[in-house]
Amino acid sequence: MQKATLTILGCGSALPTRKNFPSAQILEIRDKQFLIDCGEGTQIRMRQMGVKANRLGHIFISHLHGDHCFGLIGLISSFGMLNRTAELHIHAQADLEKLMETQLQYFCADLPFKVIFHPINPRKHELIFEDRSVQVFSIPLKHRVPSCGFLFEEKPRDRHIIREMIDFYNIPTWRILKIKQGEDFETDEGEIISNEQLTVAGDLPKRFAYCSDTAFSEKIIPIIEGVDCLYHEATFMETEKRRAKETYHSTARQAAEIALKANVKKLIIGHYSARYIHQNELLEEAKTVFENTVLGEDLTVYDM
Amino acid sequence: MQKATLTILGCGSALPTRKNFPSAQILEIRDKQFLIDCGEGTQIRMRQMGVKANRLGHIFISHLHGDHCFGLIGLISSFGMLNRTAELHIHAQADLEKLMETQLQYFCADLPFKVIFHPINPRKHELIFEDRSVQVFSIPLKHRVPSCGFLFEEKPRDRHIIREMIDFYNIPTWRILKIKQGEDFETDEGEIISNEQLTVAGDLPKRFAYCSDTAFSEKIIPIIEGVDCLYHEATFMETEKRRAKETYHSTARQAAEIALKANVKKLIIGHYSARYIHQNELLEEAKTVFENTVLGEDLTVYDM
Repeated sequence: MQKATLTILGCGSALPTRKNFPSAQILEIRDKQFLIDCGEGTQIRMRQMGVKANRLGHIFISHLHGDHCFGLIGLISSFGMLNRTAELHIHAQADLEKLMETQLQYFCADLPFKVIFHPINPRKHELIFEDRSVQVFSIPLKHRVPSCGFLFEEKPRDRHIIREMIDFYNIPTWRILKIKQGEDFETDEGEIISNEQLTVAGDLPKRFAYCSDTAFSEKIIPIIEGVDCLYHEATFMETEKRRAKETYHSTARQAAEIALKANVKKLIIGHYSARYIHQNELLEEAKTVFENTVLGEDLTVYDM
Repeated sequence: MQKATLTILGCGSALPTRKNFPSAQILEIRDKQFLIDCGEGTQIRMRQMGVKANRLGHIFISHLHGDHCFGLIGLISSFGMLNRTAELHIHAQADLEKLMETQLQYFCADLPFKVIFHPINPRKHELIFEDRSVQVFSIPLKHRVPSCGFLFEEKPRDRHIIREMIDFYNIPTWRILKIKQGEDFETDEGEIISNEQLTVAGDLPKRFAYCSDTAFSEKIIPIIEGVDCLYHEATFMETEKRRAKETYHSTARQAAEIALKANVKKLIIGHYSARYIHQNELLEEAKTVFENTVLGEDLTVYDM
């Protein structure tokens, strides 16, 4: 089975701490890498993790606060020095292209690859990216500035062949790909062997949702319903609930309530305020509501 | 005696590594902090070092390559969130202000302090900053783009009073500051006691020079002659001397030759190419020419 992993590069909030860089994470799925948010130091964290970015083609930026995008210029600049030639696609609110224009021209004039901006509308839930095996949808969030999360959905995976049946009907190798994709098989005698006889269902497609930055918002529940893994911001604890509301952030408990109501399989929390030295407090708070909560930590890989 | 220290936040070159962030260092002298260069992640390193930046008023940027200035926007933005009110002065080539204008307006619209840019001409050796106790001069360097180093010079420190003599002449406290600054003393009887009888020379003013990025250039020698500490880039080893020349960088040996010819007291090397895993090789190379060479390392404080 192809693995799906989430590598957290940074899960701090606006002010970095000794432990946490600002937001950035890499979702690796179907042999592709997607970078979600790109706070200052993202390229440094990638180096520290030994992440080879040769399969990174698409970057998704949730919103235009510095702790979610200040790392882009350094990343792009370094990709240039490393002689990357593949196009780099940035999915973000339209303003970002204008904001980066001058610097890209000045610092990255001789870039050996193209940077292509794809504007997204953070107020709409819609398909914003699709390829052969993955779809990405925007998730409108509730923040001080327009902000959206991202839902990554694998397309259905191939069915597994039943080796004995393939041998029994003497099916040639060149037919197997199609059979994995659901075709029946016709023998030389004209007998139709149904796909169900030859295969079993493939692994279930994975679904991952990233929701940061956002206040508690039940509107996202139908969109993220049942995902394998939800990363939801938990900037504060309940003791700072008022501050969470004022700043349009969530508490750990609220993140867990969303996870519970959306019936997700696993919750990873992050985007912690710098005030929390002992982040386990945030984890404990979330766990009282949703048991399968995991503490997001920088430089950590999570299986999906 | 007031201490003078250099804190290296980052001494890598363009591509960050596991060990080295891009260029940034803090010179602390006469109870003031000066930030020299501000590569990506500077604010993160400051946090990691527990550097309180409340005495940081002036930033000096050597040249406009990303690894020397991409950390500015994040630093400024965070200073804003921390409610800094003191003006922040940035001494850099004039282009930098234009390059940062759009982003400052967008990301730092409500900054509670002023950011003031002071253009410097990297081709001239001249005084670019002065206050009561410190002077800073530009040092024209030789790089692919206009680049300049910085010479920090303390103004003469106060003389030390000879306590016994002060007591002997019964000199009132209110006169002592002036005597420390070199004044003679007149007794009630009209006798002039020369300053030399009352004081001994104060500690020698410290001088620190920062020279990065630059190819080997003997033109800087008269400017940095005899400094207490020279930070000089050593991007490559002699085995890569051709590459050093092509890219307008220096080898460790060349840095040491400059130190030797300029008769400096201590040399710190840095700005290492990411290719060198074992940076001690660079140190060894430099030491064959200039014994008192120290390996610059991130997150390290050096006494002057």
